[in-house]
Formats: sequence, C-alpha cells, structure tokens
Amino acid sequence: MTRIPQRTVERFFRYCQFLHTRLEAGSEHVFSHELAAAVGVSPEQVRRDLMNFKLKGTPQRGYPIQEFMTELYAHLESSSLTKMVLLGVGNLGKAILSYFLKRRPNLSIVAAFDQDPEKTNRVYSGCQVHHIGQLEKIASREKAAVGIITVPASAAQEAADALVRAGVKGIVNFAPAQIKVPAGVFLDQIDITLSIEKAAYFARKNSLKEQLR
Amino acid sequence: MTRIPQRTVERFFRYCQFLHTRLEAGSEHVFSHELAAAVGVSPEQVRRDLMNFKLKGTPQRGYPIQEFMTELYAHLESSSLTKMVLLGVGNLGKAILSYFLKRRPNLSIVAAFDQDPEKTNRVYSGCQVHHIGQLEKIASREKAAVGIITVPASAAQEAADALVRAGVKGIVNFAPAQIKVPAGVFLDQIDITLSIEKAAYFARKNSLKEQLR
Repeated sequence: MTRIPQRTVERFFRYCQFLHTRLEAGSEHVFSHELAAAVGVSPEQVRRDLMNFKLKGTPQRGYPIQEFMTELYAHLESSSLTKMVLLGVGNLGKAILSYFLKRRPNLSIVAAFDQDPEKTNRVYSGCQVHHIGQLEKIASREKAAVGIITVPASAAQEAADALVRAGVKGIVNFAPAQIKVPAGVFLDQIDITLSIEKAAYFARKNSLKEQLR
Repeated sequence: MTRIPQRTVERFFRYCQFLHTRLEAGSEHVFSHELAAAVGVSPEQVRRDLMNFKLKGTPQRGYPIQEFMTELYAHLESSSLTKMVLLGVGNLGKAILSYFLKRRPNLSIVAAFDQDPEKTNRVYSGCQVHHIGQLEKIASREKAAVGIITVPASAAQEAADALVRAGVKGIVNFAPAQIKVPAGVFLDQIDITLSIEKAAYFARKNSLKEQLR
C-alpha cells in the first residue's frame, strides 16, 4: 500500500473523531460540508479525500457514517493493537495514562517508566510503573511500537535514545527540548508551554492593537 | 514595533528556553552553533536572528547569555504579567495548572473554571476553581488575556465563545475539536491524542518497512 502523507493521515483521524461523535449522537449519515466545517478544511478537500473510498453517498442524506468509518480504519490500519510505553509519570504523564486507559481499545500504553522510587512498582490508571532502568528490557519484550516522552527537558534525549534502542518506531516528545532520532523513527514534538507562551505573546499584541484603534 | 512572525516568536522562545538551561548549568556564553543544534534550526538562521539584537559576541567565547536573554525578553515583551484563565479542571487541566504555579513569574493562571460542583470553590495548585457560569464575569474583571481550553470536545466551541466575549485575545485549545474564533483573537489548537495516533500510524508503517527489508 502506498504511504499516505502526514497531513492526510491527520485529516483521516479527524474525520474518525468527528464521525464517532456523530454516531454517538445517533446520526447515521453525514454531509461532506459538515465534515469540512468540523475538521476545518474545504469541502473540496473532503470530496477529494472521499474519492479514496468505495463509499456511496446521496445528495439527500449524505454518506453512511458506519461504512465511512470502516473504510477510514482500513486505511489507517488501526484495527490491530499498537503497544506504547510512556516515560515520565508526572502530571502530564498521568493525564495521558488516564486518557488512554479506556478510550482507545487499539492503542494501549503497556508500561510506564520513571526514575522516582516513590512511583515505581505502583499502578497508575491501570498501568504498571517500572524503574527507567528497565525500559529497554521491557519495551523490547513487549514489542512496543510507540514511546511517549513526558520527562523533564534535560532527560529527553537520553529517553529517546533508549526508546530507539528498544526498537520503538514512533515517538511523541512533550519535553520542552528538541530531540533527534534516526531515520526510520517517526517523531512529533509538542511543547505545551511554548504554545501557551506564544498565545500570550500574540494576545498582548492583539490587545495593544485594539487599544490603538 | 513591527509584528514578529509566528515562527520567529517560536524560535525566540526556544532560544530563551535553552539559554535558561545553560545559565542554570553555570555557563555565561553560548555559541550560535550550540543554539542552532539545541533549537533544531540552521546556524545561518540563528545568525540571521541575532542581527535583530545589539549583541556583541566573540569567536572565542560566543555570545553573553545574560544580555542575550534581556534582548530576547525585550522583543517578546514578556516582562509584564500576562493573566490567563483555564477552562476544564480534568487531568490535563491540573497538569497545566501545576506547571504554571511556580515556573513562569510573568505568565499566571489567575482563575480556573469547571462545571463539576465537586471541583468548584476548591483550590488546585494555588488556583481557585469557579463554576463555569462565572467565567465571563471573572475573566473580564481580571482582564485575562489568554484562555486555555481543556474541556471535552463537545464543550470546546462554547468555551471559546465565552472566552471571546470576556475579552480574551489568545486561546490555546487542547480539546479534540476544531474551534473557530473571530479575527483579532490568536488561536492555537493542540490535539494530544491525535499526535499520539499519528505516531502510532507511522510507527506501524516504519515497522512494516523494516520487516520487508
């Protein structure tokens, strides 16, 4: 199968997210313009995406949600279980653990790691916390594909290196430090504090502009 | 003063972040190539950015960190207090509250809001939690400039609308739903789950490629 570009994958996941909400609200069909508005893309983009699927919609009712989701999941191949590990059981780490506990049957955090002895050998949100020294052994044994980094900035690169040695092929780094991974490992870096600082910067600018008007 | 583009602002904040770490580690000077490596941009980009500052470096020692930070903060105007409010005191909300409690003297979350009566009229990480119904009153009284949204997807747009009515000029939305804000309000949307799903998708692809090699 051909590799779907990152932006398309992102849109497909957003479609899934929205369709799931609609299905829960009792809807059976969806119009492309509704999808476009919910996901924040143009209706043309949605229609182009829809050409990837063997999906029959009608102008009166739109597209059948259940079939649409089946097609999306087939493209995203997320019907099989993907195992993940989490490094750093601080506040953000705990928030992510608790989120994934029940909501995502096909995405499971199979083990968490921390260096604080107060936290190891305990269970948070159904997930066993081990000492960080055991990361490579446990992550390779479990065949974890994804690593989530929520350690402090100074420990982030070391954490990523250990994950790569353990065979992880995708990393999401939440530590406020830019890390590097070898080719063949997907990396996404999300700096929550930086986003909030940026919003504060532009909010100040916007306030100033309004005052000067 | 001219408006600095968003990517530049982001780099400037990353420079601050790295310089802060270096200063704490006892360094007094930094080389542009060190900055480039830490922030993940080219040395040429760093040198272009440095031309904005009245900063004198030497080839032997690099740039003086303390002066560099003073110049950066002057550009980012973050020496005055920016007030923020947070909506939704779940796990992620609590993680953000606890992060901002001590670490950022110029960025303060002055009030938090939730609809759960169990959480209101309590203090989390030094921040008073009010009922969501009081948002507009309190956020306008406090002149909050920034709103942080950590409510469920279904409540996100409503939360954003209330923030805009209260006069907030910058929003960071962590709810897994695309929201809309009027012109003049900065918006950043961070979907943590989506990033993890995307990493899982590309990790599966990368594993497959390795097996086929």
